[in-house]
Amino acid sequence: MRMTVLVGGVGGARLLSGVRELLGPTPFPDPVDDDGNRGGGAAPGHPDDRQRHSVTAIVNVGDDAWMHGVRICPDLDTCMYTLGGGIDRERGWGRVGETWHAKEELAAYGADPDWFGLGDRDLATHLIRTQMLDAGYRLSDVTAALCRRWQPGVRLLPATDDRHETHVVVSKPGGEEGEQVAIHFQEWWVRHRAQIPTFGFAQVGSDDTKAAPGVIEAITEADVVLIAPSNPVVSVGAVVSVPGIRGALRTTSAPVVGISPVIDNRPLRGMADECLSVIGVETSAEAIGNHYGARSANGILDGWLIADGDHAVVDGVATGTAPLLMSDPATTAQMVRDACALVGVATPDTDAGAGGGRP
Amino acid sequence: MRMTVLVGGVGGARLLSGVRELLGPTPFPDPVDDDGNRGGGAAPGHPDDRQRHSVTAIVNVGDDAWMHGVRICPDLDTCMYTLGGGIDRERGWGRVGETWHAKEELAAYGADPDWFGLGDRDLATHLIRTQMLDAGYRLSDVTAALCRRWQPGVRLLPATDDRHETHVVVSKPGGEEGEQVAIHFQEWWVRHRAQIPTFGFAQVGSDDTKAAPGVIEAITEADVVLIAPSNPVVSVGAVVSVPGIRGALRTTSAPVVGISPVIDNRPLRGMADECLSVIGVETSAEAIGNHYGARSANGILDGWLIADGDHAVVDGVATGTAPLLMSDPATTAQMVRDACALVGVATPDTDAGAGGGRP
Repeated sequence: MRMTVLVGGVGGARLLSGVRELLGPTPFPDPVDDDGNRGGGAAPGHPDDRQRHSVTAIVNVGDDAWMHGVRICPDLDTCMYTLGGGIDRERGWGRVGETWHAKEELAAYGADPDWFGLGDRDLATHLIRTQMLDAGYRLSDVTAALCRRWQPGVRLLPATDDRHETHVVVSKPGGEEGEQVAIHFQEWWVRHRAQIPTFGFAQVGSDDTKAAPGVIEAITEADVVLIAPSNPVVSVGAVVSVPGIRGALRTTSAPVVGISPVIDNRPLRGMADECLSVIGVETSAEAIGNHYGARSANGILDGWLIADGDHAVVDGVATGTAPLLMSDPATTAQMVRDACALVGVATPDTDAGAGGGRP
Repeated sequence: MRMTVLVGGVGGARLLSGVRELLGPTPFPDPVDDDGNRGGGAAPGHPDDRQRHSVTAIVNVGDDAWMHGVRICPDLDTCMYTLGGGIDRERGWGRVGETWHAKEELAAYGADPDWFGLGDRDLATHLIRTQMLDAGYRLSDVTAALCRRWQPGVRLLPATDDRHETHVVVSKPGGEEGEQVAIHFQEWWVRHRAQIPTFGFAQVGSDDTKAAPGVIEAITEADVVLIAPSNPVVSVGAVVSVPGIRGALRTTSAPVVGISPVIDNRPLRGMADECLSVIGVETSAEAIGNHYGARSANGILDGWLIADGDHAVVDGVATGTAPLLMSDPATTAQMVRDACALVGVATPDTDAGAGGGRP
C-alpha cells in the first residue's frame, strides 16, 4: 500500500516510526534505478515486487529559518534524526551526545540570535544543507542527500522547496498601543515561549510557492493519507497552506484520516493550545476536528481518530477512539491501524515491509 | 613609535605578543572617534597623547580557504586567538577547550574535506566571518569586528581583502608521468603533510588584487618594519606578493628588519624546509637572508637578525645575532629590541605603552 503522512516535528516523527514499524522501511533516497540514475526523492512511490509498501512523509517547513548564515529545517531534521537513530530521545529534538560550543562562542561574539538551540553536531547538517542550497540544489534534493546517511526508511519530502516561513503577528515591543510587528515563528516559540500578546500567523515566502516535486502525486496517488497529531496550526496548517496541497487533499481518491493531537483536551506536547487560541479554536478534539472539517464540506478529513475518553462530533467525518500515546513504534503502529480502519483501509496483518514480503 | 610587522600564523603571533609586551597595547579596533564613527581598522596608526606607540600587523591570507561553505583564515585567527587569550597554547592554533563534533559529523556525511581541523568553537568565528562577507563587508572590516571581542592589542590587517590563496603545483594523483595539478595550500600542508612531489607555488585570486586599506600606509608611515620569523615562502612570501606591498617595503623611509625563522639551520616550527626546497632555497639563515635580499639590491631587508651560533653574509644587509627562541613575551620583547637596534632604531626602555605614558 501507498501511505502518505502530513507531519510536523516530534509528533510527526513518532507517528512515522509507527508507520515504518507497520509497513516496513521504504528505501530513501531511491536506490540506483535501471538506468543507473539516482532518484532525487521526487518520484511518487510505486511499490513493485521488491517493495510491497511505500510511505511518503510531507514535512512542514514553516519552522525553517536562516540563522548565523545557515539554513535550519527543524521538522525535517527531527524526522530524519528520529528515524535514523540520531535523535536525542529525551529532548525530542537535536542530536544525541550534542555539545553547544559554537553556540556559546556565537553568544560571546554578541551574535543574534542567542536563544536558538544550535548544537555542534547539528551544525554539520546545516552546513551541508546551506552549501547545497547555495550551489542551486532544491531543499528536496538536499533532504534526499542528507538521508543517504540517515536511511530513515520513509520518503521525506519538504512540503515545498520554496521559502514558506511561518511568521507571527505580535505587539511591537516598546511600540505604541496597538502597534504590531511580525516575527519569525522560532523567535515567538523559542525565545518568547509564545507568552506575548499574539494576533495571528502568516506564511512568508515567494508569491509563487508551490509544492515540492512528488508532494501532490504522493497525495493524489496514495491509498490512504494520514494527518499526524502535530500542531494543527503551525505544522499541519503550514503544510496545508502550501498552494496545491489543500486541493490535492480535497480531490484525492484516497481517504484522509487525521489523528488528534490532544488527549483529555490537553496537547500531548509543545504549545499547541497557544497557537489554537490565537486563531480562536478551542484545544479540544472536537474543535480541532471541526477546524479541519469534512471533505464533504470544504474541509480535509474523512476520518478523525481521537483519544479514548475524548469526544468529538464533526459533521461528515467518521470519528473513532483509540489510545493515542505513541510510547513506542509497536504501540504507534496499532494506532495507525486504528486510523486506517476508521476509513475502511485494511493494513497488513504483520510487518510485511520491504524485502520481507518476497517469497 | 609606529611599528609594522609582516606575519604569518604561529611564529607571527608569538612575535606580536613580544611587540605588545614592549610597546603596550594598541587599541583595535579603533575606539569611537570624535565624530562618533568607529574606525574599521583601515586607518594607519598615528600615536597621539593617549597612545605613544602603535603596532600594525599585516597578516598573511594565503592560507585562507572556503571549506564546508565557511571562510577560514588560519593566520588571522591564530594571531587573534593568541593575542586575545583564546588560543590552545599546546597545539599553537585553534581554540582552547575545543571539541570536534561538527567535524566528526561532516565526515560521517562523507563531506570533503575531512582532513581539516575545524573545531566547534572555531566554527563560530567562521560563521560570523562568512555572514559578514556575504553581506558585503571586506575581510578587513570583518577582522576588526571579530577583534571587538578579542581585543588583541595590535592592529590586525589582512594583507589583502581580495582572494589571494596559495596553491601548490604537484604531480597529478593517478595522472600520467609529468602531469601536474594545482591544489590548495591547505590540502598540501595539512592533508599531504608536504610529503608529495612538489614543483612550485602560485597565488590564486583576482587579477586586480590590492593591499587592504591601511596596509601600504602602515609600511610607508612606519618608524620601523619587522618581518616575522614566519615561513619565508608561504607566509612572508605570500604577503609580499600582494601587489603594492613589495614596492612599499622598498620605498618606505623606515628601516626593514627581518628575523630568521631558522635556528641552527632547522626551522623553528612548521615545515618551512619543505617550502624552501621547492623554490630551491637552502634552509639556512644565510640562504633565507639572501632570498629576501638587500633593499639596496632590489630586495626587502636592511637588517637580518639570526640566531646565536648561526652565520649569514647578505650583501648590503646588516646582520646580527641574538637568542631567537620566543619562549615568552618578555624574552620576545628583548628579541624585538635587538632587531630594532640592528637597524639603529631605539626602543622604549620600559613598557611605556598605551595609557602608561600619560603623566
